Amino acid sequence: MNQIITFGEVLMRLSPEGNKKFIQSNLLEFYFGGTEINVGISIANFGGNVKHISCISDDFVGDTAISYLRRFGVDTSEIVRSKRPLGVYFLEIGAVMRPSSISYNRSHSSFSEIQPSMVNWEKSLEDGKWFHWTGITPALCKGGYDTLKEGLILARKKGMEVSADPTYRSGLWKYGEDPKVILTDLLNYSTIFIGGVNEINEVLATNFSYSEEDFIAASKLLMEEFPTIKKVFDKIRTAVNASWHKIRSRMWNGIEFRETEDFDITHIVDRIGTGDAYAAGLIYGLQHYDDFKAMEFAAAASALKHTYEGDVNFSSVDEVLGILGGNTSGRFNR
Amino acid sequence: MNQIITFGEVLMRLSPEGNKKFIQSNLLEFYFGGTEINVGISIANFGGNVKHISCISDDFVGDTAISYLRRFGVDTSEIVRSKRPLGVYFLEIGAVMRPSSISYNRSHSSFSEIQPSMVNWEKSLEDGKWFHWTGITPALCKGGYDTLKEGLILARKKGMEVSADPTYRSGLWKYGEDPKVILTDLLNYSTIFIGGVNEINEVLATNFSYSEEDFIAASKLLMEEFPTIKKVFDKIRTAVNASWHKIRSRMWNGIEFRETEDFDITHIVDRIGTGDAYAAGLIYGLQHYDDFKAMEFAAAASALKHTYEGDVNFSSVDEVLGILGGNTSGRFNR
Amino acid sequence: MNQIITFGEVLMRLSPEGNKKFIQSNLLEFYFGGTEINVGISIANFGGNVKHISCISDDFVGDTAISYLRRFGVDTSEIVRSKRPLGVYFLEIGAVMRPSSISYNRSHSSFSEIQPSMVNWEKSLEDGKWFHWTGITPALCKGGYDTLKEGLILARKKGMEVSADPTYRSGLWKYGEDPKVILTDLLNYSTIFIGGVNEINEVLATNFSYSEEDFIAASKLLMEEFPTIKKVFDKIRTAVNASWHKIRSRMWNGIEFRETEDFDITHIVDRIGTGDAYAAGLIYGLQHYDDFKAMEFAAAASALKHTYEGDVNFSSVDEVLGILGGNTSGRFNR
Amino acid sequence: MNQIITFGEVLMRLSPEGNKKFIQSNLLEFYFGGTEINVGISIANFGGNVKHISCISDDFVGDTAISYLRRFGVDTSEIVRSKRPLGVYFLEIGAVMRPSSISYNRSHSSFSEIQPSMVNWEKSLEDGKWFHWTGITPALCKGGYDTLKEGLILARKKGMEVSADPTYRSGLWKYGEDPKVILTDLLNYSTIFIGGVNEINEVLATNFSYSEEDFIAASKLLMEEFPTIKKVFDKIRTAVNASWHKIRSRMWNGIEFRETEDFDITHIVDRIGTGDAYAAGLIYGLQHYDDFKAMEFAAAASALKHTYEGDVNFSSVDEVLGILGGNTSGRFNR
Amino acid sequence: MNQIITFGEVLMRLSPEGNKKFIQSNLLEFYFGGTEINVGISIANFGGNVKHISCISDDFVGDTAISYLRRFGVDTSEIVRSKRPLGVYFLEIGAVMRPSSISYNRSHSSFSEIQPSMVNWEKSLEDGKWFHWTGITPALCKGGYDTLKEGLILARKKGMEVSADPTYRSGLWKYGEDPKVILTDLLNYSTIFIGGVNEINEVLATNFSYSEEDFIAASKLLMEEFPTIKKVFDKIRTAVNASWHKIRSRMWNGIEFRETEDFDITHIVDRIGTGDAYAAGLIYGLQHYDDFKAMEFAAAASALKHTYEGDVNFSSVDEVLGILGGNTSGRFNR
Amino acid sequence: MNQIITFGEVLMRLSPEGNKKFIQSNLLEFYFGGTEINVGISIANFGGNVKHISCISDDFVGDTAISYLRRFGVDTSEIVRSKRPLGVYFLEIGAVMRPSSISYNRSHSSFSEIQPSMVNWEKSLEDGKWFHWTGITPALCKGGYDTLKEGLILARKKGMEVSADPTYRSGLWKYGEDPKVILTDLLNYSTIFIGGVNEINEVLATNFSYSEEDFIAASKLLMEEFPTIKKVFDKIRTAVNASWHKIRSRMWNGIEFRETEDFDITHIVDRIGTGDAYAAGLIYGLQHYDDFKAMEFAAAASALKHTYEGDVNFSSVDEVLGILGGNTSGRFNR
Repeated sequence: MNQIITFGEVLMRLSPEGNKKFIQSNLLEFYFGGTEINVGISIANFGGNVKHISCISDDFVGDTAISYLRRFGVDTSEIVRSKRPLGVYFLEIGAVMRPSSISYNRSHSSFSEIQPSMVNWEKSLEDGKWFHWTGITPALCKGGYDTLKEGLILARKKGMEVSADPTYRSGLWKYGEDPKVILTDLLNYSTIFIGGVNEINEVLATNFSYSEEDFIAASKLLMEEFPTIKKVFDKIRTAVNASWHKIRSRMWNGIEFRETEDFDITHIVDRIGTGDAYAAGLIYGLQHYDDFKAMEFAAAASALKHTYEGDVNFSSVDEVLGILGGNTSGRFNR
Repeated sequence: MNQIITFGEVLMRLSPEGNKKFIQSNLLEFYFGGTEINVGISIANFGGNVKHISCISDDFVGDTAISYLRRFGVDTSEIVRSKRPLGVYFLEIGAVMRPSSISYNRSHSSFSEIQPSMVNWEKSLEDGKWFHWTGITPALCKGGYDTLKEGLILARKKGMEVSADPTYRSGLWKYGEDPKVILTDLLNYSTIFIGGVNEINEVLATNFSYSEEDFIAASKLLMEEFPTIKKVFDKIRTAVNASWHKIRSRMWNGIEFRETEDFDITHIVDRIGTGDAYAAGLIYGLQHYDDFKAMEFAAAASALKHTYEGDVNFSSVDEVLGILGGNTSGRFNR
Repeated sequence: MNQIITFGEVLMRLSPEGNKKFIQSNLLEFYFGGTEINVGISIANFGGNVKHISCISDDFVGDTAISYLRRFGVDTSEIVRSKRPLGVYFLEIGAVMRPSSISYNRSHSSFSEIQPSMVNWEKSLEDGKWFHWTGITPALCKGGYDTLKEGLILARKKGMEVSADPTYRSGLWKYGEDPKVILTDLLNYSTIFIGGVNEINEVLATNFSYSEEDFIAASKLLMEEFPTIKKVFDKIRTAVNASWHKIRSRMWNGIEFRETEDFDITHIVDRIGTGDAYAAGLIYGLQHYDDFKAMEFAAAASALKHTYEGDVNFSSVDEVLGILGGNTSGRFNR
Repeated sequence: MNQIITFGEVLMRLSPEGNKKFIQSNLLEFYFGGTEINVGISIANFGGNVKHISCISDDFVGDTAISYLRRFGVDTSEIVRSKRPLGVYFLEIGAVMRPSSISYNRSHSSFSEIQPSMVNWEKSLEDGKWFHWTGITPALCKGGYDTLKEGLILARKKGMEVSADPTYRSGLWKYGEDPKVILTDLLNYSTIFIGGVNEINEVLATNFSYSEEDFIAASKLLMEEFPTIKKVFDKIRTAVNASWHKIRSRMWNGIEFRETEDFDITHIVDRIGTGDAYAAGLIYGLQHYDDFKAMEFAAAASALKHTYEGDVNFSSVDEVLGILGGNTSGRFNR
Repeated sequence: MNQIITFGEVLMRLSPEGNKKFIQSNLLEFYFGGTEINVGISIANFGGNVKHISCISDDFVGDTAISYLRRFGVDTSEIVRSKRPLGVYFLEIGAVMRPSSISYNRSHSSFSEIQPSMVNWEKSLEDGKWFHWTGITPALCKGGYDTLKEGLILARKKGMEVSADPTYRSGLWKYGEDPKVILTDLLNYSTIFIGGVNEINEVLATNFSYSEEDFIAASKLLMEEFPTIKKVFDKIRTAVNASWHKIRSRMWNGIEFRETEDFDITHIVDRIGTGDAYAAGLIYGLQHYDDFKAMEFAAAASALKHTYEGDVNFSSVDEVLGILGGNTSGRFNR
Repeated sequence: MNQIITFGEVLMRLSPEGNKKFIQSNLLEFYFGGTEINVGISIANFGGNVKHISCISDDFVGDTAISYLRRFGVDTSEIVRSKRPLGVYFLEIGAVMRPSSISYNRSHSSFSEIQPSMVNWEKSLEDGKWFHWTGITPALCKGGYDTLKEGLILARKKGMEVSADPTYRSGLWKYGEDPKVILTDLLNYSTIFIGGVNEINEVLATNFSYSEEDFIAASKLLMEEFPTIKKVFDKIRTAVNASWHKIRSRMWNGIEFRETEDFDITHIVDRIGTGDAYAAGLIYGLQHYDDFKAMEFAAAASALKHTYEGDVNFSSVDEVLGILGGNTSGRFNR
């Protein structure tokens, strides 16, 4: 069945409409998100066959979260349920020079009690071809790390491709382990690295700059340290302010350095999940195109995500290819 | 200043509009509630001088909760802040034979880390005349019990009136103590008992029926066991279904038994907090009227609460007295 | 063209959704209403040809009010504009024993500067067959009284039917005239009296009871005092509470007393404008049916109005007749 | 896999909030419905394994419809797509004596071009155990009849149970065939009849009354005419008005007549789909309980549906059994 | 009365709020639109006297459509009604590089059964001074073409000005006629051509470029082919992306070529109907100003339309002239 | 207590969502505003201790206004109540070249009957350290001028700082006094002047240009005429259009001229109250920083206000300082 597997926490996102603050509102829009499921849903929207593994609250909120994944055709059959509540994040959406603000309620969520014994990895990976993980999951709790590692070991044993997005967020990592040690451990089971010099510096304790030369050098060093990693893809964001960004991408695939043009996102609708849209585009792209076109597809997908409300990229493959084909003037689709 | 003191958790309440389920919605209305603060806000709406003590998250959600209390003029100066998130409850509002459903996310909330050392009871009770507590607070966590007990000891030392609403909810009480032991301990510092035979049976391990005779006998026995308790007030609800209730009240004040007429609530708008509206009406009433009128005031206040959305009774004293004066036909106030 | 003429203030109505109070809301629904225009729009919905005369603010709020009347095909060509703002009323909708509350902002509205010189009554009544007035207009300001009187004089000169709904509301009448004197003056130009013993007692300073005998006696006395008045129609409302009313109607047409059955409105959606819906039904009915059927039509129209949000009865003639034909079980119209 | 198969049109339902009319609104809520899919989704909510067969527009509206079915876990893999638009119905929700109004836009919808050649019945019924059809499908178009018949023939060949809800709606049936002939043809492939004397009179051209005796006689005659039919279940609705109904059910299963108590639905939230909820309850019930309990389950499910907005019964099996267990007072589920 | 006549389909427009997709929404905003009625309403907002001819569904949706036109004072007296449903279009509003998407449900709409016999053109054009048509109407159905042609013949006989906006949309034109033949036929009855080289190339089967020289040459050739056409006006749009456009206009009036400055629309609110706003501005402008100022007025009107939600330009004449007077800094109107 | 005192009208603001016009809406968002209270609330959000003096309607609208001020911790204890209605303003929010439109209903509002006898200035200024006034208050009514003057006299007697924002709005000033005379009178009691050459020209009847030299010369002349004034602060706005502004500030403090950089507000959310946010930032800044940093703080605060809906700047001190620290890329606050 050629399935892409994602594993991670599903969060409820709650935010007032538009740019309102909580103090001036009494209505909240809700979606479900989480970095891995954002990737999974986006791939499903490209027509991919996706299964998500998680631990979700056994109440009507959890039922709604699972139903949300099913809307997009994501396979939820291996999700386990918990008596703990679903993780929540509250969001106030900024504009211009005002940053967006996020407040989390996830430290004792249903996902926080995940343990290797709860997931049947054999069954979960049965039809698996690709496994995608991010640095959020091992940052949340020891059980997240342990469970993920078990999955990765099996994935590699089955010869699956493993993409790693080792996003480092210092506000997490509260359970007493050294992020560098854990990420290093997990990268040993990965084949595609989605990240740039920041992430490499974090993992290798190096000090590379943003220059093209340093990016290539850093990528080479990473591949030496982690021989399973064959390709490095980096998304570069330039922010005019909270409402106006430019996105481009570069890569080192062991053979050549390539870089895309800038995508100019003059009127951002929603910034959340744009990195996840990039990862999803890359995974889909690498399954269907050459490395450079995959990276272009990823960057265009990420740019498009900025135009959708919520955490998820709703674009179809044709819509992403339309952008690459130069249709960026926003003419109607009738 | 003759202040009424309430102490307890503040929760964010999230529910879809009308009778929608989460699975068919993407918008949630939010209010803030919690049994003690519902009592406090309602008394503030009667013109009372109320201070609420709590532990609230130090984020924009917590800021909004505090701002919400301030709307009604509740004194929030002694509220402490916490790094943990605010407790949340999710609500689906039923109708006719469909019950409402609630799912809580409160076990690791900001309030759950309350400790006696965090509250300055001397300062908090400075102007205190009345202290109101409920059985929810000691049920949530050991720190809730310990902190409450310290407050009650000081309240009694200062000669304050102490009303107890020992609502027993078995789904709470997870931290390992025996509810009966703890409630018994706290009732020793109480002077007004808001509850009926169910609550007395729970505390005294008795088996009284709902009959008038048994209610009087139970009240007498309670007063023997807890000599500080001088009066017992009981609210009786008869449910046709989730949309149609009748409310009345009865009392034993050590001297006489009295009972009100039924208030017929033919079209319930929101059932939450109707017990709290009763307690608030009683506290206000006992400060201004004789026992029977206080109880009538409380029952009318509780009936009115069923007509407001949210957790809180918005009625003014005049509006409650209007009901008692027979103005139940709903003619316009112009 | 057989036109029905209405004259009076157009108000903007602002209310929170459902049963919310202003203090718990930040969104208001708005409609436009006013007792005479409610009558006019309802007649237009029956297919009648209606022209409304008023003085409306010359701003985008006034533009919207006029546009609102035009939605229903009401002729707005003789409406004059003013630099003053449109009158506004704020509404909190009650339920069960909670009454609805209204707060007005109309004392210096655009309508309050109406003067006889501003209205071209000759042109306004050109195609007029029926003139409807209420006691609200002369209560608002001297100019309202003077202007109305001029219109009524011409209407009678042209032989138009004139229906009077002398609703007495003591909160108005601030400009120093005696309501009784003014209403008496205006009733001299009226042919149909829409009101009951309360209104007759007010005008004649009598003390009739609600009994059938007294209603007939009061009607006869009224007709003696005002010989142009040929018929008296009275709507009787019995309120279980703010959410549940019963409506019936009775009449004395100089020949016979008749009374309708009760219409049982078990779940009121919106009570405002139900008297206006009655008047509209009566005016339409008297133009098409005999007196008793006209009264039944009016009572059914009033009952139906309780099921629409806003000030206005949206029912068509067929829908009203459907009720009279016994179709009160609410089966679908497909 | 023991799958229940439903076949029929999926419609988009559009209605203003609450009891508003289109003329006073600019916002419409939308759901997806259709009598057969309402049955299917409700069974899926009971935990049943459901596959729906239909023809849906190949645009973002159709994508959303399919996504809607997937929310509930309904198998959409055999749905075919069409260039024609999805059928739509517009709804104004009445109250008290005001009936709800529906306007359809379905005569040239995507479903209207269904043809036997478009559906792979072998694949569709692969895991089928039960086939449910209604009289709406053959009424819509010749292709609907032909396609349904092909499915029914195969279903019976595979020994599947076939439930028929031959709802007769005279506003449909525009394509020139005699409803009686076609329904008769299809009933020959059916085993469970969901309908009462009205439907039997329609099919058999008889004239039975609503009495118990006549219901039994009619059922017996039906079974004689259609020997595959083994059981007849009839839902009886008594309407106080559009906001207040009572529901009960009776049956003749060839052996005994039974009847349930009335379920009193004092405050209807949404009436649409209550017959479908009954059919779903019955299908689920007959798979798990004896005939009488299945019928009670169906009637309780139908009663519960009146408390949900939209076309669909969201109740779980436990929630329906709760009603049967006497929990009709609407106490909270916490 | 100097009336402007428009003729064409009225469509219901349904779209989720903001930039949401249908799949992430359950609420749709609705307006009514259609290219000719957009022109008509905009002219009515300029104070023009407009009558619209159409065929609209005879249900509450059609009632609401007619009521919508009446809001703006458009004369609806010659609109005919049909048993078929109103045409609908569904819209997802894009942003930045994401295009908006539209899905139509109009092929069997009420307008699709229009026939010459249904329209009383003598009465419709009684007070007509100007007739505006677009290429959408003859593209929809043969009856649309035939009916339009009848109207145009009479309009020219009465000496009315006829403006043609021969927008060519290849997705329409399904009924088997050659667009070129039909448009050519209709242009013979037209006096003002609203379109550029694209439209001229389509009609004349030429291949002119966008250059100034070619525009002039194309216009001259058009006027040779269609001697009644005296002026050609062309609106030129440059798109940065779906959220940011620039608009300017150029003309050839047989005497001189003129071109306006660019209007820079940096933050588009709603793009739909901006061509219609241009046509409306031009028709109004040509009735009140010289050709160049009319064209400037049209371009400014079109630019302003981008700032209104819905299909319609709400600007008054003063508001458009304000832009031309250089007031483009958006200072408050108080 | 070091309190900042503000005095002025509180208005209800009513506007449709987004860029809608009233004619296309039936829902209005409401906030409370007014230039002085906007300043007060913003200072309260900076942690300042603010008391507002006003006269507010004694109805549920006025209750809600007071509750609104209390949300932010503003001291409302000296607000007086009136039988007149609260002032209202209606707002349509423009975009790009479309200006926003405002219509007021305030000429007979509760504030319009303010009289010196109604305010207890001794009590009101008890803890006062700073008094802020604007030119709106004396423009509204004679009582506003008289009451303000009494407050200013006492404020100066107590040695309080007095900031003046003499905004001149010619649409006000209807009660017959010369604005120049009155503003001159009040400036005699002021110490900080918030305004530029326009305001100075208005007060001194001079004709200075916008140049740096003229600004300095004008400021010097102002200080000569009003020796209590020690500093002049000027906010300069450059508008691309209604959606895109740039803000900078300059000052003359008697010693030096300084000017800030431009703040580029590329996507304005709401322009209302941005001048008030500047004044609030300045008052806070002058209490905590040197003159230049105070001015920078004010300009950054004003820029941030453009990103909040409603009249009020919600920014905290840290958020404003963040902008000054260069964090204008809108990265998330987690």
